Amino acid sequence: MSRNVLKVVKIGGQLLGNEYKLNRFLEDFVQLSGPKILVHGGGIYATDLASKLGILTTMHQGRRITDQNTMEVISLAYSGLNKQLVAKLQGLGCGAIGLSGADAGCMISEKRPVKEVDYGFVGDIVSINADFLASLLESGITPVFSALSCTSQGQLLNTNADSVTSELALALSTSYQTQLYFCLEKKGVLKDVTDDSSVIAEINFEQYQHLKSEGIISEGMLPKLHNCFRALESGINSIFLGNETLLQPGTQRTKITT
Amino acid sequence: MSRNVLKVVKIGGQLLGNEYKLNRFLEDFVQLSGPKILVHGGGIYATDLASKLGILTTMHQGRRITDQNTMEVISLAYSGLNKQLVAKLQGLGCGAIGLSGADAGCMISEKRPVKEVDYGFVGDIVSINADFLASLLESGITPVFSALSCTSQGQLLNTNADSVTSELALALSTSYQTQLYFCLEKKGVLKDVTDDSSVIAEINFEQYQHLKSEGIISEGMLPKLHNCFRALESGINSIFLGNETLLQPGTQRTKITT
Repeated sequence: MSRNVLKVVKIGGQLLGNEYKLNRFLEDFVQLSGPKILVHGGGIYATDLASKLGILTTMHQGRRITDQNTMEVISLAYSGLNKQLVAKLQGLGCGAIGLSGADAGCMISEKRPVKEVDYGFVGDIVSINADFLASLLESGITPVFSALSCTSQGQLLNTNADSVTSELALALSTSYQTQLYFCLEKKGVLKDVTDDSSVIAEINFEQYQHLKSEGIISEGMLPKLHNCFRALESGINSIFLGNETLLQPGTQRTKITT
Repeated sequence: MSRNVLKVVKIGGQLLGNEYKLNRFLEDFVQLSGPKILVHGGGIYATDLASKLGILTTMHQGRRITDQNTMEVISLAYSGLNKQLVAKLQGLGCGAIGLSGADAGCMISEKRPVKEVDYGFVGDIVSINADFLASLLESGITPVFSALSCTSQGQLLNTNADSVTSELALALSTSYQTQLYFCLEKKGVLKDVTDDSSVIAEINFEQYQHLKSEGIISEGMLPKLHNCFRALESGINSIFLGNETLLQPGTQRTKITT
């Protein structure tokens, strides 16, 4: 029996901060046929809220240190954003449900062990309640995930939104052919980082190795692509990278394949 | 066929602001047998957050005026609290799911019409997705509701938490025998408002009329009791009022019956 296609779409801070673009994107998202999941971060929004509340955001090599106060602000910011997205989707006729990892034990994580740096309340996902998510999807309900996971002891943890996206898709890949969509600032992987129209339409692993050795892929894109190929190896069907027009038919974007 | 008993429990700001008492209460809640729903407000928490963000809370005769900024803060505060409660329940082994009215169209409302006073983004519930809630309850999942409803156009609205509690219970009263539990500051309805031990164990409508005419019931308790008797008339099975020990076996509390 051929499995249904499940689309898992990740949006980030840049889009969440631009209401016009966000609304357009959500309209495209609602038009996607078949079962789908939306995942969002919101780091910029959380940083802004923390700053308004006088809570200092500490970074270490570009990564946030999540202390107790920061964790509380993140849970407010992400959960508030989550409900606003769900309400917008509801208004567009899409029956969505907002979830964190705590809800119905959807996404259980463990606190990252302290090594040289203590990143604080940051979690790595250890299990996904795929049965519950599949039952929602089968009822035509669209899960909307914030990047909050939860330990089995009930501690909310800040979690990388890209990892949330991949882990959800992987956990559901036994029941569905899963496709990932990452909404970035750029239109996709560029042949020339200074030329936004130089989008590479499709990259497989061999081409990736070649582009990497030629130094064509930008610094920021390398870890993303590395993760994409790992996800493909683990059972994800295909991955698309693009900007806020990512979900529009005929748009310029990069497809990552094995 | 006799219907299962569904317990709908409402907690308010006082309890939410006291972590020790809240944790104890949640332990009692988890011990309740059978299907159950938790409803929470969080007005005090929202007022505190608004004040930290420099947003003025305007009140009219004790009721909050919810302008756009206030609505945004309320959606943050309530949704953040909601996820924190769900995480705590998860840690206590209770499979909970946090919901607002927007999620799966659980609680659709209309904005209150402007008469002498414009209360702003305040909603009155017009429909409940009882089928979806019943399916969660049948799977052993415990819904945790914040007092946020949503219009069919996707606007989140601030909603009275007591009304949320009654409306949820009423919508489910065709499938369940529904019991309401309101957690207050007082141990229940007092014969003597200055004597906390003078809890009246049970009040029916006739006794209520009598106590009212004797002036025994306090000002603050009158609208609550009025709403309780309206809910009983509409199909709710029984209602309990008490303080944070409300759910403990053998506790002092007031039972409201027809």
